[in-house]
Amino acid sequence: MIPLLRRAFPLLDDLARTHGKALPQDVLAGTITAVLLVPQALAYALLAGLPPQIGLYASVLPPIVYAFLGGSRTLAVGPVAVAAAMVASALIGFAADDSTRYLYGALMLSAMTGTFLLLLGALRLGWLTHFISHLVLSGFMTGAALFIVGTQLAPLTGIAVPREADFAEIVRFLAFSGASANTMTVICSVCAILSLLLARKPLIALLGQLGVHPDIAGILSRTAPLLVITLATIISARFDLQHSAGLAVVGEIPQGIFNVDFAFLSEPSWLLLAPSALMIALIAYVESISVARTLAFRRHEKIDPDRELLALGISNLAGACVGAMPVAGGFSRSMVNFDAGARTQAAAVVTATWVALGALFFTTLLRDLPKAVLAAIIVVAVFQLIDFRSLRRTWAYDRGDGITQVATIAGVLLFNIELGLILGVVLGTAVFLYKTSRPHIAKIGRIIGTEHFRNIDRHDVETWPEILLLRIDENLYFGNTPRVETQLMNMVIERDNLRAVVLILSGVAHIDSSSLEMLESFQRSLADKAIALHLAEIKGPLMDRLSRTPFLQALGPGRVHLSTNAAVKSLLHEIS
Amino acid sequence: MIPLLRRAFPLLDDLARTHGKALPQDVLAGTITAVLLVPQALAYALLAGLPPQIGLYASVLPPIVYAFLGGSRTLAVGPVAVAAAMVASALIGFAADDSTRYLYGALMLSAMTGTFLLLLGALRLGWLTHFISHLVLSGFMTGAALFIVGTQLAPLTGIAVPREADFAEIVRFLAFSGASANTMTVICSVCAILSLLLARKPLIALLGQLGVHPDIAGILSRTAPLLVITLATIISARFDLQHSAGLAVVGEIPQGIFNVDFAFLSEPSWLLLAPSALMIALIAYVESISVARTLAFRRHEKIDPDRELLALGISNLAGACVGAMPVAGGFSRSMVNFDAGARTQAAAVVTATWVALGALFFTTLLRDLPKAVLAAIIVVAVFQLIDFRSLRRTWAYDRGDGITQVATIAGVLLFNIELGLILGVVLGTAVFLYKTSRPHIAKIGRIIGTEHFRNIDRHDVETWPEILLLRIDENLYFGNTPRVETQLMNMVIERDNLRAVVLILSGVAHIDSSSLEMLESFQRSLADKAIALHLAEIKGPLMDRLSRTPFLQALGPGRVHLSTNAAVKSLLHEIS
Repeated sequence: MIPLLRRAFPLLDDLARTHGKALPQDVLAGTITAVLLVPQALAYALLAGLPPQIGLYASVLPPIVYAFLGGSRTLAVGPVAVAAAMVASALIGFAADDSTRYLYGALMLSAMTGTFLLLLGALRLGWLTHFISHLVLSGFMTGAALFIVGTQLAPLTGIAVPREADFAEIVRFLAFSGASANTMTVICSVCAILSLLLARKPLIALLGQLGVHPDIAGILSRTAPLLVITLATIISARFDLQHSAGLAVVGEIPQGIFNVDFAFLSEPSWLLLAPSALMIALIAYVESISVARTLAFRRHEKIDPDRELLALGISNLAGACVGAMPVAGGFSRSMVNFDAGARTQAAAVVTATWVALGALFFTTLLRDLPKAVLAAIIVVAVFQLIDFRSLRRTWAYDRGDGITQVATIAGVLLFNIELGLILGVVLGTAVFLYKTSRPHIAKIGRIIGTEHFRNIDRHDVETWPEILLLRIDENLYFGNTPRVETQLMNMVIERDNLRAVVLILSGVAHIDSSSLEMLESFQRSLADKAIALHLAEIKGPLMDRLSRTPFLQALGPGRVHLSTNAAVKSLLHEIS
Repeated sequence: MIPLLRRAFPLLDDLARTHGKALPQDVLAGTITAVLLVPQALAYALLAGLPPQIGLYASVLPPIVYAFLGGSRTLAVGPVAVAAAMVASALIGFAADDSTRYLYGALMLSAMTGTFLLLLGALRLGWLTHFISHLVLSGFMTGAALFIVGTQLAPLTGIAVPREADFAEIVRFLAFSGASANTMTVICSVCAILSLLLARKPLIALLGQLGVHPDIAGILSRTAPLLVITLATIISARFDLQHSAGLAVVGEIPQGIFNVDFAFLSEPSWLLLAPSALMIALIAYVESISVARTLAFRRHEKIDPDRELLALGISNLAGACVGAMPVAGGFSRSMVNFDAGARTQAAAVVTATWVALGALFFTTLLRDLPKAVLAAIIVVAVFQLIDFRSLRRTWAYDRGDGITQVATIAGVLLFNIELGLILGVVLGTAVFLYKTSRPHIAKIGRIIGTEHFRNIDRHDVETWPEILLLRIDENLYFGNTPRVETQLMNMVIERDNLRAVVLILSGVAHIDSSSLEMLESFQRSLADKAIALHLAEIKGPLMDRLSRTPFLQALGPGRVHLSTNAAVKSLLHEIS
């Protein structure tokens, strides 16, 4: 019973194993993370177009559920910027100005995101997310961040930009509509953004010069958003800026840490939101697993992808039950948690407890919090996601990858956030298929004095007129079968007096049925010309498969060699 | 001028080069092919749901155009069974019972098939067709053949099966509709099918025993369809079976070799047929190029795929201008042409001349030709396309390929001929991506007494406790990056006292940007643990690319080795 419990709930196992010795560390780390999480929770709810408390709900129960079920010891689960933007993108068309339907839509997204994650885990389809490459994800994040900055121009300036607008429309509206900004809102935004930016590297550098330990300086820097919120709220309340200067404020936030209301279950249009929920699930998982994997390896630990899918799925389902927006493991928050010394998910329970205390007792204080400050927090947070340096590097390294990344960014900005992602995945896959469809086939020879064989065009090698050594540098599959066949045929036709062709398969992990058929017919065609086909360096798993086929029998005895060197030795012996 | 002409028209080049010496051979081969082509032309027009002359038109001008432009010396272009079935499948929904619209639809298909082939050639996109694997094509052919047999049950029995029916409906109709067959039609069909089957291997064997040369026996066997048509027409006319016994006959066939009528150009619904035309273009090209390539290699010749696309495209466009159905290079017909000794496309001109003579002077004789005989010719011809043996072999060799093939056949039969093809291509690609997404990574060691390194689990090898040699047997790309990262990390975590990890890249032709980033982060993680990352056996083209990246600089000097053996030597020297 106990072992079963410990396997089902890694947190219990960790606590039992460490005899609670890591708890003090976890309490400290959890507290620091909470300081970062509270402003993010409020801001990302605003980003999703939801009331602030929906972000708080997403920061209490879901991370606690993950804490017990999840396999990562330091992943900090909660609302994240990109998922919030995807929620907004999905719901603008779905609910427009009907705020109840909008909220129900958000809960439907949480429920379906959770269900999709569970399904992916149960069907062991996590590998499907590998097709959202790092490249596409980075392009997607850059595009999404630019898009998010665009959407925040409204709360930052006080101009009422239409909410259905896409990125291009927002820019056009701001440039040409003639609507003028609210002065106090702009002042508030600029001060908040400047404070947040200065609280990063400049503050840490300053504190360092003052002799403060870097770790402490880092922690102090992390408190900036909470301090800015507190200060702005106090000033806004003291001078009643809402009424005296037209500054938009958050307003009443109901107290509590959840709002159980299953009315959203009776909404009729679930199917409409299902594609968006699937996208959110994929992005949530990809972001979470990559952070979890990186942090785990630093401490010599492993991550089980399927467990992560299940844990994130149940966290989101639990979130839907308590009125929360979709959650994922956040990158910056998890890094803070890790750097602050979190050892187990007990830290996440501590974080959630702090958020719960705030949500239960202090929300009334936030009535006068300016929305512009939350928008500033969003903008500064997502600005880190914008990564044009990666784009430059990608472009220099591989043109196909570069085009994929540019197309992803452009897709997000010109169409919408989901189409951009799909475009990236499809293009990325097409680029890979294109590359594998035109394989490199090298004529090779022996580097003199070694047993090593390399390309005759690149190295100084010895060759033999009656033997053609061909190294195929790609899996053989239908996508390149016709081209490989043509290349092989042409290389044979070029040479006279050929007695043997040796295919070196060191670069071939798979031969599919179509290619096998091609090799069989190539072997027969060579036999008609009295040329023998030999194979060398077949890898173990491929040999297991080939040995069951009539192809190897058709080749004849002594035609398969362990190494190229062995093949050449045996052929030279045979010919002479 | 002359060289330009010879390059543009390979036939002229061939004739000039051979000084016409091949002509007698070509005349013989062209004549034999004509004997086979005439019955096929009539039958495939019927299969496409078109009047018989449309098949004849497709057998005169299009092959002559191909003869001058095409790169294959022996490909016999004309109407083919599968394209005919695809025309029927596309037009049933398009035109139903409006025979003018149906005919216009066929010409639109010819025109668009030609256009798509030209476009594929001009944009050098022929490689796209590689994704219709041999496997999928074979499954598609099997499914299409079964489907064609199903559609011919109506003319074979005289039961009026509704034309819109799919395969399952046809079977259901025949089994349950209670409609009874026409006795004379069934007799005619059975006699025709038996004669055609007996004229194959049994006749050749019999002639062989009588001392006839196999080549002559083969040619005599090929005349069977024409003889059956002649005999059946004579009997049908003599006893007026159309009126006395209700036997359906072909009826009047207008004399002529073309019917120029551009009225079809003003049809409004071209877009409706475009997807079908694209499919026909792809199948026509794939079938043609594979026959052309095989036959060319037998005579030590090359085929230029782009030229084939252009030549087939112009042939189809020419066909549309003279009222012909879509054409392609037929497999059986080309084999007959080749075996009969055709040396150049002059043979095709001879074939077309014979067909033209027939179409100009003898069509009135065919008035009483029973449709059942044409159906019998179709059924016997497509029966050769049914290949369940390939399915069994594929299934035994590779389960994923087997599933793809079964799904293709099932898709053709259960949905329709085009959806089956799409299903096959998509599934085939998914299977390939799935395979490449889970690469094999082998821990390797040195086979004692050689410089050859193999898997430690499969071979008796020497290893070193401080060095981990890992051979990655797959291209590194986003689809497997997360899995490779996890595997590498796990293999490192398993070992203590590790000083160096050597990645052997003999099986890696491509590293995409996502994987490069993964390798960079892996290198940094290893450096944190004081483990050095080395690379060995990087292939030339990959090295060209990597050498431009900061990754190689980050690795440090002396970390890239030509061979695994060199890496081990250098490391042992360094460690000791």
